[in-house]
Amino acid sequence: MTDPERPGQVASRRIHTGKVINLDIDEVRFPNGKTGELEIIRHSGASAVIPFLSDPGADDPTILLIRQYRYAADGFIYEIPAGRLEPGEPAEQCAVRELREETGCTAAKMEHLYTFFTTPGFTDEKIHLFVATGLTSGESELESDEFVEVVPTQMSAALKLIKDGTINDAKTALSILYVAGFFLGR
Amino acid sequence: MTDPERPGQVASRRIHTGKVINLDIDEVRFPNGKTGELEIIRHSGASAVIPFLSDPGADDPTILLIRQYRYAADGFIYEIPAGRLEPGEPAEQCAVRELREETGCTAAKMEHLYTFFTTPGFTDEKIHLFVATGLTSGESELESDEFVEVVPTQMSAALKLIKDGTINDAKTALSILYVAGFFLGR
Repeated sequence: MTDPERPGQVASRRIHTGKVINLDIDEVRFPNGKTGELEIIRHSGASAVIPFLSDPGADDPTILLIRQYRYAADGFIYEIPAGRLEPGEPAEQCAVRELREETGCTAAKMEHLYTFFTTPGFTDEKIHLFVATGLTSGESELESDEFVEVVPTQMSAALKLIKDGTINDAKTALSILYVAGFFLGR
Repeated sequence: MTDPERPGQVASRRIHTGKVINLDIDEVRFPNGKTGELEIIRHSGASAVIPFLSDPGADDPTILLIRQYRYAADGFIYEIPAGRLEPGEPAEQCAVRELREETGCTAAKMEHLYTFFTTPGFTDEKIHLFVATGLTSGESELESDEFVEVVPTQMSAALKLIKDGTINDAKTALSILYVAGFFLGR
């Protein structure tokens, strides 16, 4: 961190320690050697899951979307099951847990496909995308501030909901397009 | 905001006013009528652009990616040109400005395709995606903390960079997949 040649952190000051995020103001060395201050939201990272209710090899398979209240979006939005990593929790274990909590389902197979930064201009949050197949349903276990409806949706319908802007959550749209392009029919 | 029936804001407390983001802790009414506190990062929103260097109707057209230093990602990452809305700035004007600043290009046509929440679990940031066609090149005008290299890339190559995880910025991967699926060949 203190290598004088390399861009990166020079110093860090914690402004806020929160439930979901922490806010730091860091002194940063840029690639030109100059330094400046940047705000950065520290996030533990998250896992997200596309759960296949039918065989992903089927013609137009069905996935599970959820419809969830999001204060930041001022209403209910479509998402895929997802949630924050607990301290020390491996990403796959988080995906298994969130799938069970939000949909009640367990999966015979959980496969990691892709990892991405949500919005690297101001946060280090990364989301790990998994595909879940061989589902067995059970009871969902929602936290007190989660309001979730499970919505089985055919891939063709999910793609239409992205195209027309009804699905407007980046991780959800990206994950469905990634799976449609690079997982199905591979 | 104070409708007793509707989920949403009950009260808001500003924790931090920053350069790029503000942090509030809000008291929120949830869909079940109960209230609780949520951290929310307030962001002015942003525009992002996929600039087509060649005719988008061409076989495997070329787009402009940028390679940019991102402290949050601890290095240089591939992105599409993008940036924050200035106060009162319309999204299309922001797209035109960011395209010019980051690549030096102006576009004969700027078309809005899609708008999405980057990570609605903790921020209200929205990104407005545009496609720019009919490019004319000029001088880029980077801000002092921007370190950007312009990388012309064929769509087929960009899709491979997403598939193999080299492109790992959500807005960039989502925008390229959206344009490949819903704009090209329409």
